[in-house]
Order: sequence, then structure tokens, then C-alpha cells
Amino acid sequence: MENNLYHLQYAMDTFYFLVCGALVMWMAAGFAMLEAGLVRSKNTTEILTKNIALYAIACIMYMVCGYAIMYDNSLLLSGIESVDVDAVMGDFASREDGFEGGSIYAGASDFFFQVVFVATAMSIVSGAVAERMKLWSFLLFAVVMTGFIYPMEGAWTWGGQSVFGMYTLSDLGFSDFAGSGIVHMAGAAAALAGVLLLGARKGKYGPNGQVNAIPGANLPLATLGTFILWMGWFGFNGGSVLKLGDVSNAASVAMVFLNTNAAAAGGVVAALVAARLLFGKADLTMALNGALAGLVAITAEPSTPTAFQATLIGAIGGVLVVFSILTLDKLKIDDPVGAISVHGVVGLFGLLVVPATNSGSSFSGQLIGALTIFVWVFVTSLIVWTILKAVAGIRVTEEEEYEGVDRSECGMEAYPEFTNTSK
Amino acid sequence: MENNLYHLQYAMDTFYFLVCGALVMWMAAGFAMLEAGLVRSKNTTEILTKNIALYAIACIMYMVCGYAIMYDNSLLLSGIESVDVDAVMGDFASREDGFEGGSIYAGASDFFFQVVFVATAMSIVSGAVAERMKLWSFLLFAVVMTGFIYPMEGAWTWGGQSVFGMYTLSDLGFSDFAGSGIVHMAGAAAALAGVLLLGARKGKYGPNGQVNAIPGANLPLATLGTFILWMGWFGFNGGSVLKLGDVSNAASVAMVFLNTNAAAAGGVVAALVAARLLFGKADLTMALNGALAGLVAITAEPSTPTAFQATLIGAIGGVLVVFSILTLDKLKIDDPVGAISVHGVVGLFGLLVVPATNSGSSFSGQLIGALTIFVWVFVTSLIVWTILKAVAGIRVTEEEEYEGVDRSECGMEAYPEFTNTSK
Amino acid sequence: MENNLYHLQYAMDTFYFLVCGALVMWMAAGFAMLEAGLVRSKNTTEILTKNIALYAIACIMYMVCGYAIMYDNSLLLSGIESVDVDAVMGDFASREDGFEGGSIYAGASDFFFQVVFVATAMSIVSGAVAERMKLWSFLLFAVVMTGFIYPMEGAWTWGGQSVFGMYTLSDLGFSDFAGSGIVHMAGAAAALAGVLLLGARKGKYGPNGQVNAIPGANLPLATLGTFILWMGWFGFNGGSVLKLGDVSNAASVAMVFLNTNAAAAGGVVAALVAARLLFGKADLTMALNGALAGLVAITAEPSTPTAFQATLIGAIGGVLVVFSILTLDKLKIDDPVGAISVHGVVGLFGLLVVPATNSGSSFSGQLIGALTIFVWVFVTSLIVWTILKAVAGIRVTEEEEYEGVDRSECGMEAYPEFTNTSK
Repeated sequence: MENNLYHLQYAMDTFYFLVCGALVMWMAAGFAMLEAGLVRSKNTTEILTKNIALYAIACIMYMVCGYAIMYDNSLLLSGIESVDVDAVMGDFASREDGFEGGSIYAGASDFFFQVVFVATAMSIVSGAVAERMKLWSFLLFAVVMTGFIYPMEGAWTWGGQSVFGMYTLSDLGFSDFAGSGIVHMAGAAAALAGVLLLGARKGKYGPNGQVNAIPGANLPLATLGTFILWMGWFGFNGGSVLKLGDVSNAASVAMVFLNTNAAAAGGVVAALVAARLLFGKADLTMALNGALAGLVAITAEPSTPTAFQATLIGAIGGVLVVFSILTLDKLKIDDPVGAISVHGVVGLFGLLVVPATNSGSSFSGQLIGALTIFVWVFVTSLIVWTILKAVAGIRVTEEEEYEGVDRSECGMEAYPEFTNTSK
Repeated sequence: MENNLYHLQYAMDTFYFLVCGALVMWMAAGFAMLEAGLVRSKNTTEILTKNIALYAIACIMYMVCGYAIMYDNSLLLSGIESVDVDAVMGDFASREDGFEGGSIYAGASDFFFQVVFVATAMSIVSGAVAERMKLWSFLLFAVVMTGFIYPMEGAWTWGGQSVFGMYTLSDLGFSDFAGSGIVHMAGAAAALAGVLLLGARKGKYGPNGQVNAIPGANLPLATLGTFILWMGWFGFNGGSVLKLGDVSNAASVAMVFLNTNAAAAGGVVAALVAARLLFGKADLTMALNGALAGLVAITAEPSTPTAFQATLIGAIGGVLVVFSILTLDKLKIDDPVGAISVHGVVGLFGLLVVPATNSGSSFSGQLIGALTIFVWVFVTSLIVWTILKAVAGIRVTEEEEYEGVDRSECGMEAYPEFTNTSK
Repeated sequence: MENNLYHLQYAMDTFYFLVCGALVMWMAAGFAMLEAGLVRSKNTTEILTKNIALYAIACIMYMVCGYAIMYDNSLLLSGIESVDVDAVMGDFASREDGFEGGSIYAGASDFFFQVVFVATAMSIVSGAVAERMKLWSFLLFAVVMTGFIYPMEGAWTWGGQSVFGMYTLSDLGFSDFAGSGIVHMAGAAAALAGVLLLGARKGKYGPNGQVNAIPGANLPLATLGTFILWMGWFGFNGGSVLKLGDVSNAASVAMVFLNTNAAAAGGVVAALVAARLLFGKADLTMALNGALAGLVAITAEPSTPTAFQATLIGAIGGVLVVFSILTLDKLKIDDPVGAISVHGVVGLFGLLVVPATNSGSSFSGQLIGALTIFVWVFVTSLIVWTILKAVAGIRVTEEEEYEGVDRSECGMEAYPEFTNTSK
């Protein structure tokens, strides 16, 4: 009888992971659509190719070595597919803390959930370096990022390992529920390193300091991408409770869904109002970035705030992203989709605001954690980008950039019938 | 032991709500894509902005006051996030009707599921008033609609409160399972009020009574929106069983999924055939509206019909919507996306057909319920629209309409590279 | 007490089916977007119409007769909606194999899951015959395919019935977990028959053997479709375990999700590299077809391979699809979206590779099963297409093809504002 309960709880927790994982996988489509909508039509095929390829690379590299690095877990290679039912039953029976103890679920479901997170981190990079980077150099970077750079910082945080044997982040009071820092700021740090080496797109910044708007070619696509990301985020944050099958965990998952939604809503309204005050118009791209900023901001701790607090945290993220985008442009850091602002600046804010609602974390711990992640990812990424620049080059030629990277890298246009000229 | 079963049932019912809620949230993307595909390119950015902003506003207003008005429930503000496990266990143990009794689940999951319904009601409005309404006036209307107008009629129906202390709809035999009337017809009533005050788009109706077709700019987008809505509707109707965790409820949820799908299928085929007979062509936009009409028609009672009956109900909805769209055009009621026909006319039909399969409802009860909802929403909306018209104006200038509201309201084009001219 | 466990398991298995079914329904949107993105703009409305209509037809025909043919099950017509709770409880109690025995769930959830599979098979056809087939002839074919041709071969395989009383496929060692052959190759066989009778599009093949590329009009849409299919495939394969609610089944579902994802990832990378070596460019459409090929390849057996094996199987599928597309063009078999290669050639490969990881199947059994399915579907489809050709015609006129089928069949353009000319 008790055994049968274990069966059900195992099945429920496994299914919960799988549903959440499928939603996070869906975020890959969201990033692809968002970025494809925000670049010019002549660079659209390439960014679509980058997005589907980086997702595939992330899945392969995390299987080959990433998961093992992050969790020191040889389970996958030794045959994650064979589950010993008796052993699982024994695990349940031996739990000292009874039914509400730690979660037990299929290892494959955990891998599936984790692997889609890696791809998310990498997706952030592709938007920032859009419209001027060589495709194959980008994909080589994706190999290192998803197979090594991300898993290392993942090991120090969610993996619980000490940072080069020096300190352990959780002991210092670092807490990052679903990855404002571990996933989003990390992706932004890698992107920033690439953008600094790449330089801005031709024509983005004028000789006298003017910033030229380069409008995205397809705003419905960008909006769709944002809605997809919003939906997928329920899996991203909701699955990060890691267990569903008892009252307190189920209630926590529910609160996470509610707060994730509330923060995104707060981000939209705040960014829309901020842009109205600054520009006098209802700026759709700022509203979209506001939604994403709200989502990034709440990701570090979506379970402890009340719905009001979550809305407020999201709203601050939404205002922050507007000013961050303007500031980066002043610094001539050219990020076509605003990824560094959304995931980096707001990701940092998300980390730092955790102690306001979660007494288990400390401000100093959050700061040290954020620094650790940023320094590691930024420095290693800079090294990899630099090597790639030296060996294979990372920037397309001026002519290729002018013609659009679709022609040179992919040999096909995204909208061959719609543009009078492909330039 | 029994306790552990309670844990599992609680977790299962909570997760069921959350999955269904995420699907309903996804409908917001569906409305955005449907409407963006059916308007002209010069008005696309604005309708996207309206859709994401109204969803955000709905989430905030329902949190601030809507949920409390609808269910007289102070739980949210007093801290929905903290679940007392012992109290939950006590609730389970005290159920007189045993395991199969009323559902017990995380309050946050109920709020999450309810809040996405509010947004659905509001989404219906945005399509009907497209291409000529001022953005900020629309958003102000959204504040009142989602924070007050919808929650009031929601309180009288799902909330179980009496209508101004006069009568209680459920006592009169009113039944609206998932909201053909409470959500869809309500949204259409608010839209109708707005459209009557706004007037038709310039050029839609000629001086000699002719009706000019104004084709949508992007039919793949409209089709995608319809598929998204179709998928999201499984959550909309399926979640409205309100409980999953025993045999009879689970079987009911399954039947609701099956019938929801069957009704949409019936609507597509019927609308396609009707349009073929009337126009001689396979009219895609009518097929899409047929799918949505089938979905709206079955929403008032998707659990009691057989699959054949559900297909038939959907098919009648599909035919109805074709004739309703033609009739509204004759009346010079200009609804660019057909929202009033799909959600209003077919929503009413859905309510009135309930007694055919559900003996717990009465035709008179359905009629009184429909009237109550329509009169309340139409009159209050008319008042709010009128005030907005007087204070801030609701219609853009003729020149702005000619140039497209994207330019005047949002300052950016949706497809800057694709249109030879933005007019 | 035991009874209550039964309630929960029943609810869990039912919900699992419904969630997976909703994901498979979502694949209909994926096929629609993929195909709409890969045809020219002048044929886009028609293919969207075909896709939503065929899904609706599949749902109706499978309800009317398909499900009964396939499973000889009169349950649906006799009232699938009424579940006798006591009888269900009795079924559970009588299981000789205890808790982990066969699955028991709501019949409606099984029907819902099955019906979306039929639509998938039919969706495959629409892409292959795009840009030149008469819409209504296609829809008539869909009636026969979904109501009779597919259910017959489904009865011989998943239905367990003997093939014309001659042999029983499962006895011969045939195994097709989720339908590489039963669904995908079957759809491709029907498509091939149609394409052979239809002939190639005007201008596709030159007089001197040259193959002219006809680029798709909207690659972001095609990419979105691929991501949708990828996501929906988790339901397609994951739901085919048919049961969730105990440890071994839950672990199997998890492995299926993981392997489905891994195979798609392998397919993307392999196709991208193969295309790079052949064409010198990163060919996005090949990457998309690679993803789909990986998914088709793993579908025949996603539960027994390790994640590495799954990646490899997907990668072989990804290479295979590139060469198959090139070969079909040499044979002047014109398949605008590559459906015959993706679903037919790779579907066959998927079947044949099953014995490598699943000892319960045999190579000869797979071969006989594949032959049985192919011959049945190809021959019956050829007969139906031939009758349609004689009676109603299957190909539009040359002028209609030149003008685009949107104008002649649907009377509306998909992108009226974006193309300088609709030709």
C-alpha cells in the first residue's frame, strides 16, 4: 500500500518535471522568434539558424560532459534509462523525513529539465551578437559555453561545489532559485564579452555621438517570441521548486506560477509607462523588454514574495531595462535585441533583491555570488572569443554585413518575396 | 497513510489547475496573433501593444480588487503564499463526502487560473475596436473592465452572489460551465458598446450601402492565433471542471477535452461549407472564425454532450458566425476581426443550448442569465466609454487613421521593410 | 483506502494522456506554419486552409468510423462520456498483476490522444502536394484517409488485428512505438501516390534536367513550425508509453522525452554539417528538416536507446534526409516541403533501426510491417487519388497555378500588402 503511494508520488514528480521541461524547451522557440523579429530581414535566416543550432548543440554538449561537470554525476553515461524499481522503493522507504522529504523522480526527467536551461543561457548570447557575427564561430563558442563555461558555474551554485576549493556560495548566503544569475546574467556576461570584441553594427552610432535606431523587421514575431517566453517561464521557475508531490511543495509551485505571471505583468506596465514619459509614445519593443525584465527579475526568488511584491519587483525590472538600454547605447555597446540589459542588468537586480523577501539569503552572499558568476563567465568567454577571433575570425566582412549575413552565411533569404531589395 | 493520499490529491489538483492556467495564459498570445493578422499592417504594432498591455493590466487589476469582488475573498491580500499544511490536512479529514468530495488545492493556483480568464474577456474587446481607437483610452477602459465590470458579473455567476440582492442566477437554473456568457459574451458586450460609440473605420462602408472588404495583412499569423486559441481552450474548458483527482472528475475532464476539440472541428467544417455555398470559395478567415465559434459554443457546457452532440453544437456555431458577420456588416457595425459575432452571438447560442444536454439548467434560467450579463456589461461599458470619449477622446484623428495608428500611437511600424508605403 | 489510490492513479494517467494529446494537437499548428513558410506567398492561404480543414476532418471522421475500425471499439458511440465509477474500481481491484498492471484511464482521454495522431498522418500529405492541387479534392482525400485508410493499417498494428486474416504483425516481431511507420511513413506513402499523379510544379524542373530552387516565402514561419513540432513530439512519443502512474512507466516516459529531444538535436547538427559539406553554406531549411528527421527516426523506439544512441539515430536521420531530398529531386518527384523524405524515407529508417536497441522486435518483422503499411497506404491512396482525378480533377489549371492557388481556391491573399505582385 505504502509502496503504491510511492509509485504515484514518483510518477507525479517525474511528470511535473517533464511538463516544466517541455515548457522551457519551448523558450528556445521564443528566443528564436524574438530575435528574428528584432533584426533586419537580411539577417533573419542566420539568426534562426543560430537559434536552432545552438539549442541542438547545448543538448549534445550537456549530455557529453556538461551534466557530469555540473553535478559530478556519472549516472547518465552509465545508463540513465534503466530504473531499478526496487531501489527506488528502497529510497522512498529509507527517507528519514517521511513522505514530505526530498524528491525522488526519474533521473532522465531531471536531465531533461536541466538541459533545456543550458540552452536558455546560450540563447541569450545569440541576440546580442546578431547581424554581424560569423555563424560558425558563434556555434563553436556555443560548444564551449554549454559544455564547460556554464556547467562550471552551475556546479558552484546548484551543484553545491566550492568555487575552486575556496568558498561555497550557499554557505555565504547565496540563493538563486531558478537562475536570474546562474542562467540569465551568465548568458548576458558571455554576450557582453562577445559584443565588446565584435564592435557595433555599421551605422548604429554616428560620428557625432548620435544613436541611430535600426528597427526590427517583424514586430508580430517579436511579440510572439515574448509571449512564448512568458509561457515557457512557468516551466522555468515552476519546475525549479524541484518537487510537486506534497501540500507545501505544491503550494510553492502554485505561488511561483502566480508570481512569475505577476512580475511579467508589472514589467510590461512599468516599461510602457516609462517609455511613454521618456518618448511620448507607447513603445512596443520596450513593453516586450519590460515583460522579459519582469520575468528575469523574479527568477532569483519567485516563491517567497507576495503577489504584490512580485508585481513590484517586476515593475522595477521593467523600468530598469528601459534605462539600461538607453545607457548601453550611450556607451556604444550595440546589443540589437537588448539582451544584455534584460538578462544581465535585470538579472543582477533580481539576485540583489532576493534578501528582501527570503531571509535565507544575504545581500553579501548575493553580491559575491553575482561577482563569481560574472567574473567567471565574462573572463572565460572573453578568452574563447579572443581565440576564435584570432583563429577563425568572429566578424563578417563589411560587404557581407552590408549585404546581410543571410546571403553569405546561409545562402538564402528569410523573406525572398517581401523585400524590394535584400539590402 | 491517509494523510499522504491527501498530499497527492492536493498536489495533483493544484498542478492540474496550473497547467490549465498556463494554457489559458497562452490564449493571450492567440488573441494577439489573430488580431495582428487580421488588421492592416499600418495598425499592427498598436494592436500588439494593446494585447500585451491589456493582459498585464488584467493581471494587476484582478489582483488589486477583481478577485476580491468576484469571490469576496480576502485570502489573497492576507497572504495567499503561506499554506498551512496542518489546516489543509484538517480540511481533507473533515470532508463529509469522503475522498471524492470538493476539491482542495493551493489558493494561488485558483487565483492563477481565474486571472487568465479576466484577460481573455478583455482580449475580445481589443479586436473589435481595432484600427481607429486611441490606445491609452482603451487601456483605461481595460482597467475598469478587468477590475470592476467583469468581476461584478463574475460574482453573480461563478461567485454565487445574488444580483443586486434581487435574484440568484444559479437558483433560476443558470449554468455556464466555462464562460460562453460570463467571459465571451461579456467581452463582446463591452466591445459592442465601444464599437457603437466609435463608429466604423473610414472606407469600410460606402455611401450606397456597399461593404468594402478590408483584408488582413498577415493570414498565417491569424491562423497561428486560431491554433493557439484552440490549444489554450483545452485549459480554459478543461480546467473549469475545477478538480481532477478522482475517477468521475478525471473522466469529466477527459470528456471536456474531447468535446472542446470536437466542437472546434465541427465549427471549421460548417463555416467552410457555408462560406463555399455563399461565396463559392474556401474562405480561410471564415474557417478560422468557425473554429473559434465552435469553441465558444461548447464552452457553456462541454461536459454533458456526447462527442457527436459537441460536433453538432460547434457546427451550428460555425454557421451562425458566418451569417452574423454578414448581418453586422449590413447594420454597419464594423468589427474588424469578427469578435462580436464569434464571442457575442455564438456565446449567447452556447448559453441557450445548454439545457439540451444538461438537465440541471433551464432555458429560462439561461435567458435571464444571458440578459443579466449582457445588460450589466453593455450598460456599464457604454457609460465608461462615454466618459472616456468626453474626457480623453476614444477615436484617433482622420489623418492618424489614414496614416495608421502605429505611427501616431506607437511611433514604430510593425513591418518597416515589407510595405512599399506604410499607408 | 486502496480505492482512493485507484482514484489517483486513474486521474493521473488520464491527465497524462490529455496533456500529451494537447501537445499532439499543437503539432497541427506546427505543420501549418512549416508548410506555410515553405511555399510561395501566392499559395499560402490555401495551405493554411488545407491544414486547419484536414485537422477538423480528421477529428470528425475518426469519431464517425476511424476509431471503431482501428480498435473495434463501440464504446464511443455507445456513450464514452458516462464513466461508471464502480466499474472502474472493479477493474482496478481485479488486476492480477497488481498496482503496476495495465493502465486504466478515461476512454475519452484515449480517444482524444488517438484522434490527434490521425490528423498528424494527414498533415504530412498536405505539404507534399502543395502549390498545385485542388483544395476540395484534397479534402475529399482527407475524408477517406482519416476515416478508412489510416484506421485499417492502425488496426493491423496498434489495434492488434491480423492483416486480412493472413498474419499478425506483432507476432512477426513488428514494433512501432509511436508511429515512425504507422503514422509518418503512412502519411508519406499517401503523399507519394498523390505527387506521382499530380506531377511537379511548373518550372521546378528544367528541360535539361536542371532543378530550380523555389524558395519558401517565410522562413521564420517555417522555423516556428519546426519548433512547434519539436515540442508537440514530446506528447506524441511521451504519451505513447500509454501509462504514467508507476515507477517503471514514469521512468520510461522520462526517457522518451529525453531521447526525443536528443534525436532532434542530433538531426539538426548532422543535417547542418552535411549541408555545409555539400553546399558550403549553413542551410536553414536542411537544419529544420534535420530536426524533423531526427524526431521521425526516434519515434519507432524512443524508450530503449540510451541518450547517446538516440542522438546518433537522430543524426543518421538528419544526414539521410539531406540525401533523400536531393535524390527525389533527381527523380523529379516534386515535394515542396520535403515531407516524403522526412516522414517516408526517415520513417522507414526509424522502423528498421528498432531491433538495434529493442530485442523484442526483429528486423524481418520490421521489414514486413513496413511493407504492409506502405503497400496498403500507397495502393489505396493511388486508387482514391485516381478516382478523384477522373471525377473532380486533382490539379488546378496552369493559369491558376501561375496566379497562385490562393486566388482561385480561397479568393484571398495571405499577405495582400507585402508582395508587389501576387504572382
